[in-house]
Amino acid sequence: MPTFADIAALLNVPVSGDGSRRISGIATLMDAGPDDLTFLSSVEYLEQFAATRAAAVIVDRSVKLMDGAKSTRSGDGRNVAAPALLLVDDCDLALAAALPLFAPPIQMPALGIDSAARVAPSAMLGEGVRVGPFVHIGERTKIGRNTFLHAGAFVGDDVTIGDDCQIFPNAVVRERITIGHRVILNSGSVIGTDGFGYKWDPKRKQHVKIPHIGTVIIEDDVEIGSCTCVDRAKFSATRVGRGTKLDNLVQIGHNVVLGPHCVFAGQVGVAGSTTIGAGVVVGGQTAIVEHRTVADGARIASCSAVYRDVEAGAVVSGVPADEHNGTLRSQVAMRKLPDLIKKVRELERELKALRSQQNS
Amino acid sequence: MPTFADIAALLNVPVSGDGSRRISGIATLMDAGPDDLTFLSSVEYLEQFAATRAAAVIVDRSVKLMDGAKSTRSGDGRNVAAPALLLVDDCDLALAAALPLFAPPIQMPALGIDSAARVAPSAMLGEGVRVGPFVHIGERTKIGRNTFLHAGAFVGDDVTIGDDCQIFPNAVVRERITIGHRVILNSGSVIGTDGFGYKWDPKRKQHVKIPHIGTVIIEDDVEIGSCTCVDRAKFSATRVGRGTKLDNLVQIGHNVVLGPHCVFAGQVGVAGSTTIGAGVVVGGQTAIVEHRTVADGARIASCSAVYRDVEAGAVVSGVPADEHNGTLRSQVAMRKLPDLIKKVRELERELKALRSQQNS
Amino acid sequence: MPTFADIAALLNVPVSGDGSRRISGIATLMDAGPDDLTFLSSVEYLEQFAATRAAAVIVDRSVKLMDGAKSTRSGDGRNVAAPALLLVDDCDLALAAALPLFAPPIQMPALGIDSAARVAPSAMLGEGVRVGPFVHIGERTKIGRNTFLHAGAFVGDDVTIGDDCQIFPNAVVRERITIGHRVILNSGSVIGTDGFGYKWDPKRKQHVKIPHIGTVIIEDDVEIGSCTCVDRAKFSATRVGRGTKLDNLVQIGHNVVLGPHCVFAGQVGVAGSTTIGAGVVVGGQTAIVEHRTVADGARIASCSAVYRDVEAGAVVSGVPADEHNGTLRSQVAMRKLPDLIKKVRELERELKALRSQQNS
Repeated sequence: MPTFADIAALLNVPVSGDGSRRISGIATLMDAGPDDLTFLSSVEYLEQFAATRAAAVIVDRSVKLMDGAKSTRSGDGRNVAAPALLLVDDCDLALAAALPLFAPPIQMPALGIDSAARVAPSAMLGEGVRVGPFVHIGERTKIGRNTFLHAGAFVGDDVTIGDDCQIFPNAVVRERITIGHRVILNSGSVIGTDGFGYKWDPKRKQHVKIPHIGTVIIEDDVEIGSCTCVDRAKFSATRVGRGTKLDNLVQIGHNVVLGPHCVFAGQVGVAGSTTIGAGVVVGGQTAIVEHRTVADGARIASCSAVYRDVEAGAVVSGVPADEHNGTLRSQVAMRKLPDLIKKVRELERELKALRSQQNS
Repeated sequence: MPTFADIAALLNVPVSGDGSRRISGIATLMDAGPDDLTFLSSVEYLEQFAATRAAAVIVDRSVKLMDGAKSTRSGDGRNVAAPALLLVDDCDLALAAALPLFAPPIQMPALGIDSAARVAPSAMLGEGVRVGPFVHIGERTKIGRNTFLHAGAFVGDDVTIGDDCQIFPNAVVRERITIGHRVILNSGSVIGTDGFGYKWDPKRKQHVKIPHIGTVIIEDDVEIGSCTCVDRAKFSATRVGRGTKLDNLVQIGHNVVLGPHCVFAGQVGVAGSTTIGAGVVVGGQTAIVEHRTVADGARIASCSAVYRDVEAGAVVSGVPADEHNGTLRSQVAMRKLPDLIKKVRELERELKALRSQQNS
Repeated sequence: MPTFADIAALLNVPVSGDGSRRISGIATLMDAGPDDLTFLSSVEYLEQFAATRAAAVIVDRSVKLMDGAKSTRSGDGRNVAAPALLLVDDCDLALAAALPLFAPPIQMPALGIDSAARVAPSAMLGEGVRVGPFVHIGERTKIGRNTFLHAGAFVGDDVTIGDDCQIFPNAVVRERITIGHRVILNSGSVIGTDGFGYKWDPKRKQHVKIPHIGTVIIEDDVEIGSCTCVDRAKFSATRVGRGTKLDNLVQIGHNVVLGPHCVFAGQVGVAGSTTIGAGVVVGGQTAIVEHRTVADGARIASCSAVYRDVEAGAVVSGVPADEHNGTLRSQVAMRKLPDLIKKVRELERELKALRSQQNS
């Protein structure tokens, strides 16, 4: 359990008061108990700040506190000592820095192969691998060092998974897929389902499945959210670039290429053969249609529908997605549209009146 | 198998005809067999009503039936007896009341712990618990009385699950989660994946995962749909309030708080730290962005994108979401927009003509 | 491994050059190695074509190649032989025809029942069935000939599954469901969860679950994507018609009826009791609300919200969905709206000036 002094040192803030005090956790202003650290990021929460029972508060320098406002507090009738304050330049960053001090260990399966796992004889497992019960590992598959696979995970034949990966319960990696180091596959994610491709057979009068003979390559340091699907390429590879993070319920179609360090929020969909550059950020529920290019550093707002290529560094939004400021202007204008229609009708009437007056 | 009299009594409708007749099921007008109950909710289906083979029909009082219209029917040449009619005030409610009479029992695993389940020695299971094969229950986890866990369900360490819960196949509950009584987790739902949070490390030039040290609290009487994800809080708890129902493929971000008795249709997404009040109803595929507040009793239409706070009792829709009637007006107006543009061009021409005429 | 002549014969194209050459795979122009087949579908890729190392290229007849352009190539200083060319009328169709030559076999569980599967004594399994480890098959369930079920799949009691089906890892089929022949259920798909229906009980002040006593019928030749959910009917059946293909993360509500040969892209949602005709194509992330009818051959663009019935053969798009050309016109017009508002203001001023001038 870290002391108050430990946290102050980590945040590079001077210790005021008893530095030896143990801090047991982090919670919101309202939830924090007397041994907890909490935070005040905005004046919006000043009232909650006045009532917090926390031992210490990380305070964003942008929030103006009244002098002595916190010197004493009356909780349930008793005077309560004010919490120690840690003034920081960026409350969110400070919080992110402090959280690891309190992070409980991630639950892992026991070292080695569980007796209720099914590991193919030809599979090769590195040192320190942990395989939970009901895990399936296919023939000729290689699992790197210290990687763990939780209960119910499925890994097909001829798969390569790197070192230090975390495969959570019931995640699925189909056959012939390549996964790098330090990759996290969350529960229920599915890597390597055939892409969605058919051709209509006019003789048999039905859709015929197009074989998907390609693979999926997940590069190092990628995290894939729960129930997120990355489909197998028709040929060559669907690729998720190094350090890219996909949230839950995201759909990545066949032959999509995602660059490094992208961040895709929940329920985003990318259709087949679209190429996304480096560092692209996509808000939740946005769709990008097939065969498009989104260049490096583009930012796409949530709930957008991208039907055209997006230039490097562009900020786009809307359905259909367009330059963000233009979308905002259109949205504001749209709300004025019913009035505008009335106004134009009035103008027509006035003009008609004016004309008849002039002609008379 | 209930008799016709049983059903009439349940619906508080007088018995007309043979009350002892057994009714074997409920089906649509077209699908119903000669021992089935069916229903007529709207004049739209009068033709199907005329052709139904059902033994009895729940008829909404709003539907006007012609006298004697159903006294005889000619099916395949033979005269068929008309079905008995049950006139009710609200066909949907009557149907909902009658359905439980025909509900087959829910399939459950056998009583006790299946020999192919993996239950940690320190787990505590209440009386009447049923644990199917390939189920994982972690250390120190508590499962309440009469709760069942179907095949392939995963429950991590230090989880608490209440009484009478139904955990369907391949559902996942990660470590340190709290689940109340009578909760239903449908197949493929995932509770407690880390929230989607990273900070950019400019030195290492990559996103660094922010630890999510919080939990998820699912209160009593909640139902969570298939492949629905409720993420773990950064600190404190992501919370799903008492009696709230989430449909399939819904995404609930970290630190979201859902009030009691909400109803969220399929594919809804709620981004991090948003707070939703009591009794909020959200239509399918709607997104609510992060750090917003939706107050009690608000209703949000399907396919909306909520970027701003929503007031108590408000009815909103659209992208971006706004007061519903305003959205409808804007949508109607938008369809007139191409004509409006032409009209304004014409006005400009006429005005110009008028001016030059006046100046001449 | 097919020869160049095999491929030329398949595509009905004359062999030019060494027909006996073995072709090892298909890849993009850039990824193709010296034993690979690749393809050139558009002038857009002429530069990549000039640099490809492939042995042979399928070239769409619409692409004009300069004479002798490919007679020699200088790779890393050495002259490289130009690839053999296969001129075809439709590059995509040719590619789809060639892909099966290179498709590796689908990974299947071993013949018979894995010792770590749990098959109920009363289940009936056809000849050639393959059941992987950790698979659950319920009482009285019938599995047709040559069907395989991969690790972690769950099939409940009283289910019927036809011949030659492919059930991928961790797919779930709940009790009392009927599945035809040659059906593919991808990983994480869930068939037969209760539909999303509750009624508010004013006495108990909570939503009460409406029993869903119906079933799901999946007809022959259907493919269901990963994490796609098809819900159980309130009564009668939710139905997915013959040959219909659903991509990943699709939601099909209770009592929906999908006709034959439909194609639904990723993340589509169809709400309860909607009826979809034959051959309907729906783009990704589109929603169709409850109790609607979409007639045969309709095409609905991606990211649409369908609130009204759609006529046979109609092409619709937008939120709310409307005739596609109208939506395009409205979208173009919407971008002009801010300017239009300015223009109308100007017209008002000018008209006022004109009037005052006239009245003076």
